[in-house]
Amino acid sequence: MSVARMGRLARGPNPLLLELLYDPALGEDRQHVLPYLLRIDAAHILMLAHQGILPRAAAAQLLAVQRDLTERLRAGAEVFGSPGPHRGLYWLYEREYQLRLGDEVGGAAHAGRSRNDINATVARLRMRDELVALLGDCAALLGVALERARQQAATLMSCFTHLQPAQPSSLGHYLTGVAAELLRSTEWLADSFPVLNRSPMGAAAGAGTSFPIDRGAVAGWLGFDGAIENSADAVATRDYAVHLLSGLALVGTTLTRLATDLQSWASFAYGFLSWPDDLVSTSSIMPQKRNAFVWENVRGEATVAIGALVNTLVGLKNTPFSNSVEVSSEATAHAWPALRAGRKAVQLTTLLLDRMEVRPERLRAFVHGAGITMTALADLLVTRHGLAFRSAHDAVGALLRDLPEGTEPEPAIVCERIPAIVAAATGRSIRLGEDEVRRALDPEHCLLAARHGGGPAPEAVADQIAALDRHRAQLNARLTGWRQFLAAAEHRLAEAIAELRQAHPTGGST
Amino acid sequence: MSVARMGRLARGPNPLLLELLYDPALGEDRQHVLPYLLRIDAAHILMLAHQGILPRAAAAQLLAVQRDLTERLRAGAEVFGSPGPHRGLYWLYEREYQLRLGDEVGGAAHAGRSRNDINATVARLRMRDELVALLGDCAALLGVALERARQQAATLMSCFTHLQPAQPSSLGHYLTGVAAELLRSTEWLADSFPVLNRSPMGAAAGAGTSFPIDRGAVAGWLGFDGAIENSADAVATRDYAVHLLSGLALVGTTLTRLATDLQSWASFAYGFLSWPDDLVSTSSIMPQKRNAFVWENVRGEATVAIGALVNTLVGLKNTPFSNSVEVSSEATAHAWPALRAGRKAVQLTTLLLDRMEVRPERLRAFVHGAGITMTALADLLVTRHGLAFRSAHDAVGALLRDLPEGTEPEPAIVCERIPAIVAAATGRSIRLGEDEVRRALDPEHCLLAARHGGGPAPEAVADQIAALDRHRAQLNARLTGWRQFLAAAEHRLAEAIAELRQAHPTGGST
Amino acid sequence: MSVARMGRLARGPNPLLLELLYDPALGEDRQHVLPYLLRIDAAHILMLAHQGILPRAAAAQLLAVQRDLTERLRAGAEVFGSPGPHRGLYWLYEREYQLRLGDEVGGAAHAGRSRNDINATVARLRMRDELVALLGDCAALLGVALERARQQAATLMSCFTHLQPAQPSSLGHYLTGVAAELLRSTEWLADSFPVLNRSPMGAAAGAGTSFPIDRGAVAGWLGFDGAIENSADAVATRDYAVHLLSGLALVGTTLTRLATDLQSWASFAYGFLSWPDDLVSTSSIMPQKRNAFVWENVRGEATVAIGALVNTLVGLKNTPFSNSVEVSSEATAHAWPALRAGRKAVQLTTLLLDRMEVRPERLRAFVHGAGITMTALADLLVTRHGLAFRSAHDAVGALLRDLPEGTEPEPAIVCERIPAIVAAATGRSIRLGEDEVRRALDPEHCLLAARHGGGPAPEAVADQIAALDRHRAQLNARLTGWRQFLAAAEHRLAEAIAELRQAHPTGGST
Amino acid sequence: MSVARMGRLARGPNPLLLELLYDPALGEDRQHVLPYLLRIDAAHILMLAHQGILPRAAAAQLLAVQRDLTERLRAGAEVFGSPGPHRGLYWLYEREYQLRLGDEVGGAAHAGRSRNDINATVARLRMRDELVALLGDCAALLGVALERARQQAATLMSCFTHLQPAQPSSLGHYLTGVAAELLRSTEWLADSFPVLNRSPMGAAAGAGTSFPIDRGAVAGWLGFDGAIENSADAVATRDYAVHLLSGLALVGTTLTRLATDLQSWASFAYGFLSWPDDLVSTSSIMPQKRNAFVWENVRGEATVAIGALVNTLVGLKNTPFSNSVEVSSEATAHAWPALRAGRKAVQLTTLLLDRMEVRPERLRAFVHGAGITMTALADLLVTRHGLAFRSAHDAVGALLRDLPEGTEPEPAIVCERIPAIVAAATGRSIRLGEDEVRRALDPEHCLLAARHGGGPAPEAVADQIAALDRHRAQLNARLTGWRQFLAAAEHRLAEAIAELRQAHPTGGST
Repeated sequence: MSVARMGRLARGPNPLLLELLYDPALGEDRQHVLPYLLRIDAAHILMLAHQGILPRAAAAQLLAVQRDLTERLRAGAEVFGSPGPHRGLYWLYEREYQLRLGDEVGGAAHAGRSRNDINATVARLRMRDELVALLGDCAALLGVALERARQQAATLMSCFTHLQPAQPSSLGHYLTGVAAELLRSTEWLADSFPVLNRSPMGAAAGAGTSFPIDRGAVAGWLGFDGAIENSADAVATRDYAVHLLSGLALVGTTLTRLATDLQSWASFAYGFLSWPDDLVSTSSIMPQKRNAFVWENVRGEATVAIGALVNTLVGLKNTPFSNSVEVSSEATAHAWPALRAGRKAVQLTTLLLDRMEVRPERLRAFVHGAGITMTALADLLVTRHGLAFRSAHDAVGALLRDLPEGTEPEPAIVCERIPAIVAAATGRSIRLGEDEVRRALDPEHCLLAARHGGGPAPEAVADQIAALDRHRAQLNARLTGWRQFLAAAEHRLAEAIAELRQAHPTGGST
Repeated sequence: MSVARMGRLARGPNPLLLELLYDPALGEDRQHVLPYLLRIDAAHILMLAHQGILPRAAAAQLLAVQRDLTERLRAGAEVFGSPGPHRGLYWLYEREYQLRLGDEVGGAAHAGRSRNDINATVARLRMRDELVALLGDCAALLGVALERARQQAATLMSCFTHLQPAQPSSLGHYLTGVAAELLRSTEWLADSFPVLNRSPMGAAAGAGTSFPIDRGAVAGWLGFDGAIENSADAVATRDYAVHLLSGLALVGTTLTRLATDLQSWASFAYGFLSWPDDLVSTSSIMPQKRNAFVWENVRGEATVAIGALVNTLVGLKNTPFSNSVEVSSEATAHAWPALRAGRKAVQLTTLLLDRMEVRPERLRAFVHGAGITMTALADLLVTRHGLAFRSAHDAVGALLRDLPEGTEPEPAIVCERIPAIVAAATGRSIRLGEDEVRRALDPEHCLLAARHGGGPAPEAVADQIAALDRHRAQLNARLTGWRQFLAAAEHRLAEAIAELRQAHPTGGST
Repeated sequence: MSVARMGRLARGPNPLLLELLYDPALGEDRQHVLPYLLRIDAAHILMLAHQGILPRAAAAQLLAVQRDLTERLRAGAEVFGSPGPHRGLYWLYEREYQLRLGDEVGGAAHAGRSRNDINATVARLRMRDELVALLGDCAALLGVALERARQQAATLMSCFTHLQPAQPSSLGHYLTGVAAELLRSTEWLADSFPVLNRSPMGAAAGAGTSFPIDRGAVAGWLGFDGAIENSADAVATRDYAVHLLSGLALVGTTLTRLATDLQSWASFAYGFLSWPDDLVSTSSIMPQKRNAFVWENVRGEATVAIGALVNTLVGLKNTPFSNSVEVSSEATAHAWPALRAGRKAVQLTTLLLDRMEVRPERLRAFVHGAGITMTALADLLVTRHGLAFRSAHDAVGALLRDLPEGTEPEPAIVCERIPAIVAAATGRSIRLGEDEVRRALDPEHCLLAARHGGGPAPEAVADQIAALDRHRAQLNARLTGWRQFLAAAEHRLAEAIAELRQAHPTGGST
Repeated sequence: MSVARMGRLARGPNPLLLELLYDPALGEDRQHVLPYLLRIDAAHILMLAHQGILPRAAAAQLLAVQRDLTERLRAGAEVFGSPGPHRGLYWLYEREYQLRLGDEVGGAAHAGRSRNDINATVARLRMRDELVALLGDCAALLGVALERARQQAATLMSCFTHLQPAQPSSLGHYLTGVAAELLRSTEWLADSFPVLNRSPMGAAAGAGTSFPIDRGAVAGWLGFDGAIENSADAVATRDYAVHLLSGLALVGTTLTRLATDLQSWASFAYGFLSWPDDLVSTSSIMPQKRNAFVWENVRGEATVAIGALVNTLVGLKNTPFSNSVEVSSEATAHAWPALRAGRKAVQLTTLLLDRMEVRPERLRAFVHGAGITMTALADLLVTRHGLAFRSAHDAVGALLRDLPEGTEPEPAIVCERIPAIVAAATGRSIRLGEDEVRRALDPEHCLLAARHGGGPAPEAVADQIAALDRHRAQLNARLTGWRQFLAAAEHRLAEAIAELRQAHPTGGST
């Protein structure tokens, strides 16, 4: 039978379909679909044989071809030859079996299944591999981020709100905060694993089958946690793609925020950070330039998932709740480049954090005149002089109103003017000691004092990092568990194949 | 002190800011922010008193005002009077305390906190209420969907792929599949609860505080599971909004698929379903019309979350990892209307499913000529006559190629022609019995046989529903647990306030 | 007849539909739909009378009610009384005519039309008003932007790439560039006017009508440029909403870029710009703060159109090409809040640009050590000493490699080292004069020299501004033309009504 | 000089940058950027020579290399050899000149330009080619759509609203409506041409240049309408990408609507349309299947632009208004795959419309019992019996209320019952003739009558098509004009090169 003419169709596909749809898909499918298709085939054939739906000898022959194709694919050898007009990978693949084994055996594997459940299963296997790899990248990023946070836990810097200097903090505290957010998002991504890791095989075209198949066995050999219960759901859903892209979009968005801060702090105006020559670029016309341009790639790659998420949701919108090309091919296709881009962003960020050079002296110099201890001064008026916080805040504000912008009050000025301001506003008479004021105005002292509410005091940051490290260890343990579980399934599948083929060695001669 | 002139600022806000920003926000904030602000204030004041940061007597006075404001708000009474120029709810609110209690007491509550952590906390409390309500709506929808699935588990209908009749199935099987997808998405939404339910209070402006506050106590009184560890994270993150909107977008997208199918099946061309007069509309010019238009509202409202999700991610993109208006006000604002719309879509779908009228006779009549048992015929050739599935499929396809579209082969025709086709293609000689062919061509028989792979056989569907019911019970139990937990926290807060106020009864006289 | 029970429907709407759909819509519709509905009604009734489809006396009676309702609406009086169960504004509105004039006359206006074409027409009229207002806002922004650009055309500043100082430029050149982009986007928005400004009236439910209506007359009275030719298109399309939201999203995105630059340049690290106290905020706990926070609102409001655009496209996706609630109500609804937000962003930006305080001394001080004249130094080696640009660039790069970051070479150092570097790299012997080097290193001199390629030399910027001013004048002229055209149509409609009512004065007595 | 070590940078790029950024980009850039880079280079070198910035002999040498590289590229030969560590295409390209001509001549072309303006120019040239090709595809689609509309202008079919049969119409009327929408959107796309077709060359890094370049000459040789006036704008803007993707998203969304209707009408339930075997697929397990699956690919490919548009806007959001990798590489990159997908959707739609088989008998059979002439019946009561439309509509509705759904009243029944219903409701006595009722109930008669308001009467549709044809001719004329203009520019560039090289033939010997 021709791959092009089939069943009730008297003609092969239109040349434009070949040019625009089948041929472009085939290149991608050979690389990214065929390996999974072969694995699914192995498990399905094995199950058909175990259930008595397919003679064991025939199964052994089919598995021998499956093995040969798998090996050819791994070796980069040609698999199908030049296809001529075709209707996509699956038909070429099935034809290969028929060519090698004759129609009677070669066409026997497609009982109790359909391209619909196969496609749904390929997509899950492929995305599972991507997810595990992505989680590994995220875990590596978290390791570096927390390590850098630990190193910089005592490095004084101003924190910022609305881009303006705010209060004494540390670079380590900032990095810990970002790591906390990334860890949560990574955990959210990881939570998709059990949703993703269920098998559609057996759902066939969406209406199940009357063949007495064993879905659980196929699922187990493929490393799934079990089979999807309802066959319509099995072929219609692509929810896990929305899960993954949502998680990736969130991780990516956080990376853009980190990139915005760090690139800014590495600019000439701040000079807090820099990267070595192998991580910056210069300009084709401005010889002075050292651009931390990689952060711009990070921002770009990190947000690819947003559009992909939109396209996936758009792809699902107003489609029938069943299998369709729009859902199974088109809507699902957006995830792959987004995963590639997202992983790139995570890997580049890891590299940049790892190689980031910090200039503590620039961080310290910056705070002069920035007024970042004014809150501490107000706090002093509350804790030592009994003012209400709002009155204290107003008094400090009034003091600053008369100073030129970009200057800070000297302790002596504070001691002189604040009592008068307070007296005028509240009628209270207070008296400030120059020592206590000097301490309040010392950013290093403020940093040490900010140990409540999740603040940047080094000891508090150490506690925060310790807590995050515990979560990270749990994440790593889950990841390791999954990898082992998947390897064990692969091993069981190989063993079951070997067992069957040993019992029917003629299969091997094909 | 004027609410407009404050601290170092010598002037009130520009009239255009009032008109475009402060005034429009105030209306929304009075209704949706103030109730949460009052509750946070109660917990914070109580904590300051317990920690000795605020005299207990002052705390009692502040709590008396807090109570009065809370009661006025509940009663719909005016809270602040006409504000004049202002800079937003928080300042008006704080001024109210100062007006009533004087600056010394009235301005004392703002120690160890900032508008940044307060805003972050309000957003979480408000979204927690929305999430719990949304989950309740989803749970109700699942209850109805599964109930209808159970009722229709034996109602024969064709399932469809690519809009074409596919194989015998049942309406109950379809509904079970959709319910399975919705249940998973609801669980995904529910998993956001613990991420959302952590307290930012104490993070202050993002750098924590030197006041010896007790974050855990505040978190507990507010019904949180604990405090967020890092203060930068606490004010910078809005990840939970991305979680919720992703979940809502996914639920919504599934609702558009259900709506697409059901509205189509209710149309004149199918006539499978209908709704009573109180759920359809007619036309202003076409008297014959009975339009199931509500599904179009469902589709519209269900997808509002997609744009809101985009806007939230856009809002976060390339912002500093710190508090900013862009993040805390602007990016967060998209969630509220999307939640309102999403809940509307869920509630309307529940109503429509509940009131849906099924016409089994139309469902059955439809399958005539639709060819949906052709797979069963091919299966018969495999299981009873030893053909490979592909050969069987090709043989049936060849048979159909010669029939006019929209007609199905009679059993006698099958028995006559198939053996010839098979012989020509494979050289094999087979002989079909008219009885076995008649059974294969009987859709009711096929439905009963499709009990593998998650298929629509009524007994299989019953199992599927039972499994979903167990999950649904777990979901409901989680939801109930959260509601009780939150009620208990509210109760503890009320008791702690009462205790403190009893010890300092003068506070009540204000 | 009840508004709830109608035509073939024996029952009013379900209470949940009232609560979730009809009642919420009614509030919005009274304010934003009814005024347009009344105007459409006037034009339609007039046309029916002119065409002899409706007796003139009946038309006069209907127009009298129309006038009364219009006046009540303008005066803020109640229009329909308390509606009770209803199915939306249109039916309430039509009932009002029937109540006042009896069924025979009151129900006569709905010939040759349908709610479908009416809704399509209301949406266009409403969006036309919004578009004209938005374009007015954009024109005002462009006026201010170009005025500020003109004032700052000679204010030296560094331009930046990758956040790093790049070359000498001016604030005026930067603002001119942004204005050029905004002007193009505004023109793109304006180009939607003729697409938008065509009348759907007469399309009825989408299949036109057999009544001999005069579409052109109705279109003319409503200020449209003509009628939409195909009735299916007329009720199905919402393309103009995509046009407007695309334009608005583009304008908004540019505003976020402007806001990012200007807020950054106003921060403590740069100090180039500031705003007076009525346009900044301070912090609730950090008394030193002067936050240019309005830029964060600008960024948030400016990007609302992105999500709205997504939702509009999502709303249209996979809908029938016909009227549907999903298209005409749901998909169209996203435009209104986005337009409100977009206009807010434009207006706030205008205010901020207008009131922006520039600190030329900070701009000038910043360039020290920033290396922004290194390109000019390389250019000197090309133009005066015959080096290839790449060799010149490499030589300057080599010179800088040995200097500490953040320092610039003194002219004497340049004269001493560059010849050696050039000799080593190219074998050429050159000799630099200290005067020519000093000139090359003088940023003011570079600024004056950069008069090619659209550069920042003040005379070049003046030319750029002049060109933009010409475009802006054209834009303003188009806008004025449209406003006059619309006013003239309104006037013609009023006159035609007056004429008919004078001929049939009894209508006025109702 | 090494391509990796350059200027002030002492080291080549980090291996991970090579792996993740430079190497993947190089493959794409060789194919899609290098051809444009070579053309820009030719125009720039020529201009430098004409302006006396570069010696003519050196220019001739550079142009000889340019020509050789162009020819190698066209022939598919290797251009740079194996690059080793590199920093992207531009540096490899420039190095090739230096290797061939020595630093002195080989490095001379980069005066008065930068990678920033080059990148901006490449993107415009590339997108211009894509736009012209896309417009050609759209024009072809419009031609086919209008041709099919013309053929089917008298083919009676029911039009639909809310999926329910509405009124008599024709397939041609429907197709005309869709074509009208697509034509407007194509014109909107075409309007981007002049915005896109302006040259950034000369803007250099964004601050112009002091070299006395001739921007106009370069723009002219490259087929641009002129140069962009402000250099900051020239390198910062990517507005045209937003224009194109918006237009493409709108076209695509309309294609999903067309696809939704036509795939539905080709399904078993309707059977109005079909496609030949080379444009449908069958199922791997359901032999009866003939799936018009290509429409699902159309819907998927047509909406890729939505996510790409989001990603482009996201990419621009909160970036500096200057050149950056985030804008020039990342944000711009989303357009290319979206354009490829969009063109695919347009081409497939063209094919499907062209090959669509219509079944008029099924279209006609469908209307029985669908009630689509009930509006005509109400109209009859208005025009011939003086009822108000609302009363007539109500009367027909009341008549239908008592009939079983899916049946239509016979003329005799109408004549009998309507007068009674009217009398009861309005007190009026009317008398209907069976002939006039029969005519009103005849859908063919209704179709002929619907000639107002843009309706489906064949003569009206002919007028609509004629109007669209005129617009289409204008569109085609614009497109032809642009193609000729671009070809002429290319010719002028080739001539100018030839002239210079003839005057300096030694250049050719390199």
